[in-house]
Amino acid sequence: MHRHELMYGDIKLYAGTASKTLAASIARYLNIKVCEHEVIDFPNDNLFIKLNSSVRGQDCYVIQSTGTPVHRNLMEMLITLQTLRLDSAARVTAVVPYLCYARSDKKDQPRVPITARLVADMIEVAGADRYVTMDLHAGQIQGFFSIPGDVLTAFYLINDYIMTLRGKMERPVIVTADLGFAKKARNFAARLDTSMAFVEKRRISNESKAEAMTLIGEVSERDVIIVDDEVDTGGSIVHAVEMVKEHGAKDVYVVFVHPVLSLNAAERLAALPVKQFITTDTIQIPQTKLAHFGDRIKVLTIANLLGEVILRANQGRSVGEMFNE
Amino acid sequence: MHRHELMYGDIKLYAGTASKTLAASIARYLNIKVCEHEVIDFPNDNLFIKLNSSVRGQDCYVIQSTGTPVHRNLMEMLITLQTLRLDSAARVTAVVPYLCYARSDKKDQPRVPITARLVADMIEVAGADRYVTMDLHAGQIQGFFSIPGDVLTAFYLINDYIMTLRGKMERPVIVTADLGFAKKARNFAARLDTSMAFVEKRRISNESKAEAMTLIGEVSERDVIIVDDEVDTGGSIVHAVEMVKEHGAKDVYVVFVHPVLSLNAAERLAALPVKQFITTDTIQIPQTKLAHFGDRIKVLTIANLLGEVILRANQGRSVGEMFNE
Amino acid sequence: MHRHELMYGDIKLYAGTASKTLAASIARYLNIKVCEHEVIDFPNDNLFIKLNSSVRGQDCYVIQSTGTPVHRNLMEMLITLQTLRLDSAARVTAVVPYLCYARSDKKDQPRVPITARLVADMIEVAGADRYVTMDLHAGQIQGFFSIPGDVLTAFYLINDYIMTLRGKMERPVIVTADLGFAKKARNFAARLDTSMAFVEKRRISNESKAEAMTLIGEVSERDVIIVDDEVDTGGSIVHAVEMVKEHGAKDVYVVFVHPVLSLNAAERLAALPVKQFITTDTIQIPQTKLAHFGDRIKVLTIANLLGEVILRANQGRSVGEMFNE
Amino acid sequence: MHRHELMYGDIKLYAGTASKTLAASIARYLNIKVCEHEVIDFPNDNLFIKLNSSVRGQDCYVIQSTGTPVHRNLMEMLITLQTLRLDSAARVTAVVPYLCYARSDKKDQPRVPITARLVADMIEVAGADRYVTMDLHAGQIQGFFSIPGDVLTAFYLINDYIMTLRGKMERPVIVTADLGFAKKARNFAARLDTSMAFVEKRRISNESKAEAMTLIGEVSERDVIIVDDEVDTGGSIVHAVEMVKEHGAKDVYVVFVHPVLSLNAAERLAALPVKQFITTDTIQIPQTKLAHFGDRIKVLTIANLLGEVILRANQGRSVGEMFNE
Amino acid sequence: MHRHELMYGDIKLYAGTASKTLAASIARYLNIKVCEHEVIDFPNDNLFIKLNSSVRGQDCYVIQSTGTPVHRNLMEMLITLQTLRLDSAARVTAVVPYLCYARSDKKDQPRVPITARLVADMIEVAGADRYVTMDLHAGQIQGFFSIPGDVLTAFYLINDYIMTLRGKMERPVIVTADLGFAKKARNFAARLDTSMAFVEKRRISNESKAEAMTLIGEVSERDVIIVDDEVDTGGSIVHAVEMVKEHGAKDVYVVFVHPVLSLNAAERLAALPVKQFITTDTIQIPQTKLAHFGDRIKVLTIANLLGEVILRANQGRSVGEMFNE
Amino acid sequence: MHRHELMYGDIKLYAGTASKTLAASIARYLNIKVCEHEVIDFPNDNLFIKLNSSVRGQDCYVIQSTGTPVHRNLMEMLITLQTLRLDSAARVTAVVPYLCYARSDKKDQPRVPITARLVADMIEVAGADRYVTMDLHAGQIQGFFSIPGDVLTAFYLINDYIMTLRGKMERPVIVTADLGFAKKARNFAARLDTSMAFVEKRRISNESKAEAMTLIGEVSERDVIIVDDEVDTGGSIVHAVEMVKEHGAKDVYVVFVHPVLSLNAAERLAALPVKQFITTDTIQIPQTKLAHFGDRIKVLTIANLLGEVILRANQGRSVGEMFNE
Repeated sequence: MHRHELMYGDIKLYAGTASKTLAASIARYLNIKVCEHEVIDFPNDNLFIKLNSSVRGQDCYVIQSTGTPVHRNLMEMLITLQTLRLDSAARVTAVVPYLCYARSDKKDQPRVPITARLVADMIEVAGADRYVTMDLHAGQIQGFFSIPGDVLTAFYLINDYIMTLRGKMERPVIVTADLGFAKKARNFAARLDTSMAFVEKRRISNESKAEAMTLIGEVSERDVIIVDDEVDTGGSIVHAVEMVKEHGAKDVYVVFVHPVLSLNAAERLAALPVKQFITTDTIQIPQTKLAHFGDRIKVLTIANLLGEVILRANQGRSVGEMFNE
Repeated sequence: MHRHELMYGDIKLYAGTASKTLAASIARYLNIKVCEHEVIDFPNDNLFIKLNSSVRGQDCYVIQSTGTPVHRNLMEMLITLQTLRLDSAARVTAVVPYLCYARSDKKDQPRVPITARLVADMIEVAGADRYVTMDLHAGQIQGFFSIPGDVLTAFYLINDYIMTLRGKMERPVIVTADLGFAKKARNFAARLDTSMAFVEKRRISNESKAEAMTLIGEVSERDVIIVDDEVDTGGSIVHAVEMVKEHGAKDVYVVFVHPVLSLNAAERLAALPVKQFITTDTIQIPQTKLAHFGDRIKVLTIANLLGEVILRANQGRSVGEMFNE
Repeated sequence: MHRHELMYGDIKLYAGTASKTLAASIARYLNIKVCEHEVIDFPNDNLFIKLNSSVRGQDCYVIQSTGTPVHRNLMEMLITLQTLRLDSAARVTAVVPYLCYARSDKKDQPRVPITARLVADMIEVAGADRYVTMDLHAGQIQGFFSIPGDVLTAFYLINDYIMTLRGKMERPVIVTADLGFAKKARNFAARLDTSMAFVEKRRISNESKAEAMTLIGEVSERDVIIVDDEVDTGGSIVHAVEMVKEHGAKDVYVVFVHPVLSLNAAERLAALPVKQFITTDTIQIPQTKLAHFGDRIKVLTIANLLGEVILRANQGRSVGEMFNE
Repeated sequence: MHRHELMYGDIKLYAGTASKTLAASIARYLNIKVCEHEVIDFPNDNLFIKLNSSVRGQDCYVIQSTGTPVHRNLMEMLITLQTLRLDSAARVTAVVPYLCYARSDKKDQPRVPITARLVADMIEVAGADRYVTMDLHAGQIQGFFSIPGDVLTAFYLINDYIMTLRGKMERPVIVTADLGFAKKARNFAARLDTSMAFVEKRRISNESKAEAMTLIGEVSERDVIIVDDEVDTGGSIVHAVEMVKEHGAKDVYVVFVHPVLSLNAAERLAALPVKQFITTDTIQIPQTKLAHFGDRIKVLTIANLLGEVILRANQGRSVGEMFNE
Repeated sequence: MHRHELMYGDIKLYAGTASKTLAASIARYLNIKVCEHEVIDFPNDNLFIKLNSSVRGQDCYVIQSTGTPVHRNLMEMLITLQTLRLDSAARVTAVVPYLCYARSDKKDQPRVPITARLVADMIEVAGADRYVTMDLHAGQIQGFFSIPGDVLTAFYLINDYIMTLRGKMERPVIVTADLGFAKKARNFAARLDTSMAFVEKRRISNESKAEAMTLIGEVSERDVIIVDDEVDTGGSIVHAVEMVKEHGAKDVYVVFVHPVLSLNAAERLAALPVKQFITTDTIQIPQTKLAHFGDRIKVLTIANLLGEVILRANQGRSVGEMFNE
Repeated sequence: MHRHELMYGDIKLYAGTASKTLAASIARYLNIKVCEHEVIDFPNDNLFIKLNSSVRGQDCYVIQSTGTPVHRNLMEMLITLQTLRLDSAARVTAVVPYLCYARSDKKDQPRVPITARLVADMIEVAGADRYVTMDLHAGQIQGFFSIPGDVLTAFYLINDYIMTLRGKMERPVIVTADLGFAKKARNFAARLDTSMAFVEKRRISNESKAEAMTLIGEVSERDVIIVDDEVDTGGSIVHAVEMVKEHGAKDVYVVFVHPVLSLNAAERLAALPVKQFITTDTIQIPQTKLAHFGDRIKVLTIANLLGEVILRANQGRSVGEMFNE
């Protein structure tokens, strides 16, 4: 045990602009200070980074979520990674609670990009030795990286929280509005020991964008937990809530890891007959958006989870055993 | 048009041991001869390859499926790719109708490999400039490759075939036994304009391997089309057929692209109350296995599809427009 | 000659969002059409690209300047490059008239990035086979790329233009306000056969940001041509103009290749006692900014230059001989 | 000394399926336990690996010989290497006592592969940081790897053993049946201070496979030690023994490092008038083959040699000084 | 602090043939011995290296300047780097006080190389993990390396020395004869708080090699300090001294970091009316050349600077803070 | 056939300083002109290259042998390769008739380099797409390259020449003085249908460098052909000639591909009782050395062989079939 502490130098935590609050919480868990560095947005829209102290031989972590403004935040992380590498850090880890472009993960039509692979390549070429991220849209994105990484899930956290509500729920059923999420929803349902149902969307014709929705499975007279990995504009959730309500659902809960909440998603969701929204702080939700939900939203923090993973990575101890795996 | 014919040299087709029949059909489509080369299995289990004529400056294609014996077939392909590259081929394309290890595509538990990425890396390091494959278990595997490739699907072929049976089918419903396949099944259902149902499997306890099965959706008094990308030992199909029959299904069709058919899968499937099995020749089914099915199996050939793709790749013409994409 | 036309397939020109006008002019020069493709800015700030037709085997050029919004424009270019590569283009060239981050080209203090190298790495990892750019802040940035490229200069264009004014100028002198630009200014002066002077800036103390300026060389009773590679906020130019005027300069001309013109630079410059501003369209100047200058600005177009370079690259003909080199 | 113990984490030893016995002996030498991990051969011939505990930050060694079944064993090693790397091991070393395909080490005719280079590339791409192997057919294969490695020889071991027999031998002479092995045989002869002779094979005509054999040098009334690096089907050895016997040799010893013993090699060799066969356990000889030799075979173990090399690699101490080099 | 000592193993210092004296001084600073190794120049002009002891797990530094004979010295360094890497060193650093080919750093005309990038690539491919060098002709060359490095400057040393003379100097002015060096000269002038002047060279016609020289700025009745990064044949210095003398300069000092001193440069310089030459030992000046200068040359040693940097690199401590940065 | 002529652009032949005569002969064979380019050796021992015309899209060949001065010649070739690549050549081939450092091809003792691999890496990193070389000391060096290449042999040429002398020879026997060359000597003997003998060298003790020599095989009353791949200082040849003469050889011929002839090798060889020396022009022998041999040396030219290989490489035609392979 004692020996591994020595291997990678001290933990040096850098807080990207998009994750200052989260990084502060992680630092608190680790009982260290966030390293100071300058991040300047020049008038010509170029960024400039300067570390305030040397990281030579240290074990460095850059905490940066890549929500809006996506490209600026991504570039800030890449530049920070390069700066650390060029300053002869012993090891550099990109900690990206929410990884942008994860939905651009395959060519499901000709002549489109696989931007998630490009992002992985950029993180590697900038100089990351490892990466840490959470609840990738598709687990396969791990295979886009040549470097090792830890892909964590917030579903244990969420599950623990829901278990505290479980006693009051009536024959809960897990519903997913994205068939690509069906398998993960099944795992979640299994852990909560509930049944499942699916909302199937289908485009009505090639010309229009209109979609027909079908509910497959039973929700009548049950409490419904709609799950997804992220909520963007909220369209799918809106339709799913309407549909389960139409089919006789009782209380509806909406669960998602990444609160992207683009455009007026917060407003649209808050207007729904949903008992509680359960999400995390992989992306920091602005106060103005949070206000729409009042006390109907529960934001679970991933800070301690990331803190513990960083600690174990630094000490050369198992991350898997945190989850009894 | 004329000019692109000139770019990559002549098409040189090499038939791997596992795909001799398929390669011959492709050559017929292209109106060329398969190139002769020696493939020797030495007593010490090492392979040796020797091309019978030079490929300097030519546009080479190695057709090799990576079914059983998987590692020997994979290694044969890799050695052939390297041989072509070292002989100064202008371009080398690995054509792998069935790509092994595609199910090892993510770390869904700690301390396991992502072998599909390793296979992609091996194909690249051996010297392939491009790859062509079919119906990957997960489309994201495209992102494991740094080289460009064409990932084709046999579902257009299968769809066309089923449309010929469609008139006789009674309110058909698409059923999938693998929730990870749900989204692709939906696309298939949409194209055939049928409804959907799911067989959900869940392990009963952590200790035993017993699984509880649930049918979500309606199959009663309907013809059922069970779809999957590949059939290995056939266990899931057996259970799915039993379950839909228990729930009152009428005719059952089983559709899958890759006929892996390990162990006694052919026997087990043939014993099921299935009206027709519909598959392809991405993997060559041995006569002994084929015999079990009698005339209840339809093996659609992908030869013309691959042939046309090779032709267009050689001529620098669109592959996507083959599918009106 | 005829044969080289055949080597790389047809020229396919893609216009990035930041360079639509320029790309259209280049296409006109080449007598071809800009290829259509979709560029979508999603609500979650992610970009999506889709080519409208296949580029298999073609010789592709992406025209995209990386001015404001820098990171979005850069990422759009990178995604486009990857899309073209994955669609099996024969060759992909990034044409970046103005390359962002070119001033972050060395570690002139500890613990800072070399972002220009990172940008070069990103362009390569995205899949560019070649690059074309103009008037890099430091020529050494060519060495940041592993791929070959053409780094062009607009100073021949500018020189030709100034020669048309030369007759009316009084003993012109070239002045540079950036000592790092001294050598290039000398070359420019030599070609116009004028003398030189320098504005030297020096920080007055470590604490404050105040700078002392010194004019080295003679400008009294002469027409002055202040040259630089780019103008950002315009601060240096403002001071240089004031200083040469104080030292008795007559007409003042301001010459720069890249009109970055951040913040209110256009306004500030337009308010100066400058006879004419001479620049190019490497970055498209918005009409609102252009309006400040009235007819005192001359924007030379680089479209024909880039068009000819693309033509010669496609045909395998010398670019250097365009400049008698 | 003390400090280097700390550098690479603990030694973690993984036993590949082909080297379980050897790995157990190495572990005994190191006074540690072999790490447990699951290796599953699936019905579809795909392999699956799962480590039973974390190797984060550890110094990992995979012991796997690549004899028959060659491709399965090779792939098992590659997958294990990748798994260790993806689990964030500090360092991963492939320990391959017998490296397959070492005889495919050059293009001695056109249009053939250099498979040994391919194997080296595969080991690197899978993630090995270092490799250890023994008595490569050609020392140059070290140059196929970009990663550092230790190529050991069992000839010191063998030499020590023969020295115990040396007193009883009559004017021993070293004979080699492979001219490509002539130089190594000379070194061996020099160390034992014996003379040398050669069996030269030459194909009689281009058409047939018949070979003429010539003995160059003196063996009459001498004890003969025939040496080679490996014995495959045993053909060369059979002919060499016959030839030296015809030329009046007395006792014949046959020495080889790698007991490949393909087909019925064990039977054929055992039937020869050979006093003793001397080999090692780089490849585990099955009991059924061993039985043919009775007590006429001496299998020297390389376990302690490999154990000591692993120990020194972990501690950052010289391997060369084990051999007074 | 204590922990970082443990990270990279012991410092192992190797002295290249071109830097034996310097390496000995560095070793003295570090209180260690230079490691012994054999460097043999074979009759066929090939070099051979053999380390006398193992560097397994050690932190190795190769000190080698790449002055004349440039290619032999460069190759010796590269071979040494590879030898250390192949012997499993933990980390290998190339310490190159004077880096050859630094003036071939960009394509300022078509069809020329960027040899400095090639040299950087060669150092990387040989196996260096890091590099250390001094006063690169252009700071941008840092961006030619993918590996991190420390680019140091001797100008602090030189500045400290000149400050000891400053009291006796009359209104000193910094003069640079290379406009490409103008910015660095400014920084130097700022630190010494002196004014500046420039010698501008311009080719008189395209045909001849004759150059016109102009002095821009004031030197009359002042002491002049001519600065450059290196002196090769000394031509520019000769002309600059003549010109400042013609313009009434009083005492002239010539300052340069790298004493390349090709051909008869030492003689030519020594013949000039220069009060003192100030340089360093990045390149060892042969006694015969040194003799020309008598006591008019001051060679400052960089040994302690490099020694301290190596110490800090080994211990994982900041190098930047040596310069209060 | 016709189409391949179009693939790689025109042949552009560049003559390195060390191979000007050979390149001129190759150009004559190809009926083209050698391309002009400047090669300047600067006073500071740096090289500079400038192409006189563009190679954009062309098929370029650099002919450069790497004999003495080895490092300068090697570097000249590398810089030329990079220059061609950066000028956007379509394909760049390094044609190296004699490859330096080929004898440093393995670690046959600890802590030594594998310099031949380093040289291969340098050729690749400089930008060669392919390489051509002749009679490598060990064929395995092909495996050091990742790029494809053609390794040719002059032994067909030499064999043809000896066949013209064969009629006059008395029971010729092939003798090799290097056991590492035994196998190639056998192939040569087989083709000439002669017997073989070996000169075995063995160090007498570890302390001294004295060597004992033994002749194995029969040479008495026979003409002897001593063969080797290269002759450096000639020591082995001198001893071999003495030994075969002592054992009663009649006429002695000495055959070697690469005339390195270091130090006074020419003199030493010429003084031997050798009837004829047979070699090639892979390295250009200076007239002063050649003079020692009078008419007793036959230098066969490889120009037509290389010319034909270049022609076929350009046209995408088989090289192997030149040798009926």
